[in-house]
Amino acid sequence: MSILVVGSVFFDSVETPHGKVERALGGAATYFSVAASFFAPVRMVATVGEDFPREETEFLRQRGIDLSGLQVRPGRTGYWVGRYHEDMNQRDTLDLDLGVFADFQPQLPASYRDSQYVFLANIAPQLQAMVLDQLPAPGVVGCDTMNHWISSARSDLERLLGRVGILVINDEEARQLSGERNVVRAARRLLEKGPHRVLIKRGEYGVIQFSADSVFAVPAFPLEEVFDPTGAGDTFAGGFMGELARSGDTSEAGLRRAIVYGSVMASFVVEEFGLGRLRRLTREDIDQRYRQFVALTDIDGA
Amino acid sequence: MSILVVGSVFFDSVETPHGKVERALGGAATYFSVAASFFAPVRMVATVGEDFPREETEFLRQRGIDLSGLQVRPGRTGYWVGRYHEDMNQRDTLDLDLGVFADFQPQLPASYRDSQYVFLANIAPQLQAMVLDQLPAPGVVGCDTMNHWISSARSDLERLLGRVGILVINDEEARQLSGERNVVRAARRLLEKGPHRVLIKRGEYGVIQFSADSVFAVPAFPLEEVFDPTGAGDTFAGGFMGELARSGDTSEAGLRRAIVYGSVMASFVVEEFGLGRLRRLTREDIDQRYRQFVALTDIDGA
Repeated sequence: MSILVVGSVFFDSVETPHGKVERALGGAATYFSVAASFFAPVRMVATVGEDFPREETEFLRQRGIDLSGLQVRPGRTGYWVGRYHEDMNQRDTLDLDLGVFADFQPQLPASYRDSQYVFLANIAPQLQAMVLDQLPAPGVVGCDTMNHWISSARSDLERLLGRVGILVINDEEARQLSGERNVVRAARRLLEKGPHRVLIKRGEYGVIQFSADSVFAVPAFPLEEVFDPTGAGDTFAGGFMGELARSGDTSEAGLRRAIVYGSVMASFVVEEFGLGRLRRLTREDIDQRYRQFVALTDIDGA
Repeated sequence: MSILVVGSVFFDSVETPHGKVERALGGAATYFSVAASFFAPVRMVATVGEDFPREETEFLRQRGIDLSGLQVRPGRTGYWVGRYHEDMNQRDTLDLDLGVFADFQPQLPASYRDSQYVFLANIAPQLQAMVLDQLPAPGVVGCDTMNHWISSARSDLERLLGRVGILVINDEEARQLSGERNVVRAARRLLEKGPHRVLIKRGEYGVIQFSADSVFAVPAFPLEEVFDPTGAGDTFAGGFMGELARSGDTSEAGLRRAIVYGSVMASFVVEEFGLGRLRRLTREDIDQRYRQFVALTDIDGA
């Protein structure tokens, strides 16, 4: 089954303690799409400027990503400049140029309308809602957001949450959105707002999933070097939703396996700058690391 | 099999965002012993002042803790006053009176000399070494330490590590002792110093164990309220070493189960102030939460 994603396609200039990269392909929809494309066909809804290079369009197409929903508009592709601290859980935005993304209005091609797996990556909640409005029968709807929307568009966001099945956010966002410091209480509050699953991303500590009657926690894969955490959360979401779309299994067991696949993808993307590692990733790499995750977490393992 | 522990027995006055407690029984050896006593007979090596209440001695004895190595000396029992921040990973020491602990010299009764399971809780590395000197055939030796000794007694500590099989420390200590910021690299460095297992405690994020050829990570049990984190690390160590002493199984699988039992015990102790929760804990409570840990972490679980 295909998976539809709406979000940003940007260029990123990133500096981390390990080095830097200039104007690398990035953005939430990009990381999500590339990760998901290892599992299922992807339909992208986004916008770029006329400066967007043909070779990147080709790269995305070759990964099985349908770009009929990618609007190419007069102007510049969005651009983000960021720097990570020694503690890579902290980063500063040094520059941000929204470019054509500033006026983005998601328009779904007719060929996307039968999408049943949908991920609303981090954009304004009003735009996330516009995507759902154009889908007659979305089945599994995942959603991300960020601190900016929680403070500036809370009522839109809360309305949206009533239409979302799976909320995928990080721990700080969970605290801010719920008003609860404790992660368990935060998740319980968020479940009351609509989603039947809340996945909380905890960076180097992994992911914890809550539903009304279950909790599942998986650590992040222990890596000796994290070169660039940019896009790790979106890559996680791509692997997670991609595997759900592939398997069609939204049972507890299916969701857990999908969370591990998401964690696998995130563990790869941080190993190099930007999309570097994903550009040469193989299905065999993914399956091998999945087995390593099983070994890492198996209480009875030897 | 019995397990021998050396460490502090203190009174603690603790304030957390949830309330406070005055002069509650505490100290690393106490938390360790009480936790371990649910799994195996415990032999305590520690010192208290003449002010130590008979009812606490009775409580420890009733838990199957052998106190022949507990020196009662003229003077005061050690006393610690601490306050936790809103973020309970942070705490300040407001007052510290070492009392008779200032001159503590561990002396093992003859009846302790056949101990094969040994835990050196956080005291000066010279004193930890003195305990090992008095044991003809220690088999499984675990060890904790703290930032103070890493900076003030590093050479003693490094020498001690050559005699230790299992190092149990928190993430900040691992970074400080290894000089590596990344937890995987830190653990690799620490394994080079002698221990064949390094267990790194990550507070609310659980525990990660490293050996030369394996990694095992387990999350902390997700709790809606953490009332008092005091003693959580020592309680973890008590459950972990206690289960090892009980089972005698130091295979990878045996260690993993012991780590989960340690995590179970730590998840209980933080639910109330001081030793409150452990004083009325049952074996059934432990087994039930162990099963919850399995459900929490099982990738294929439903």
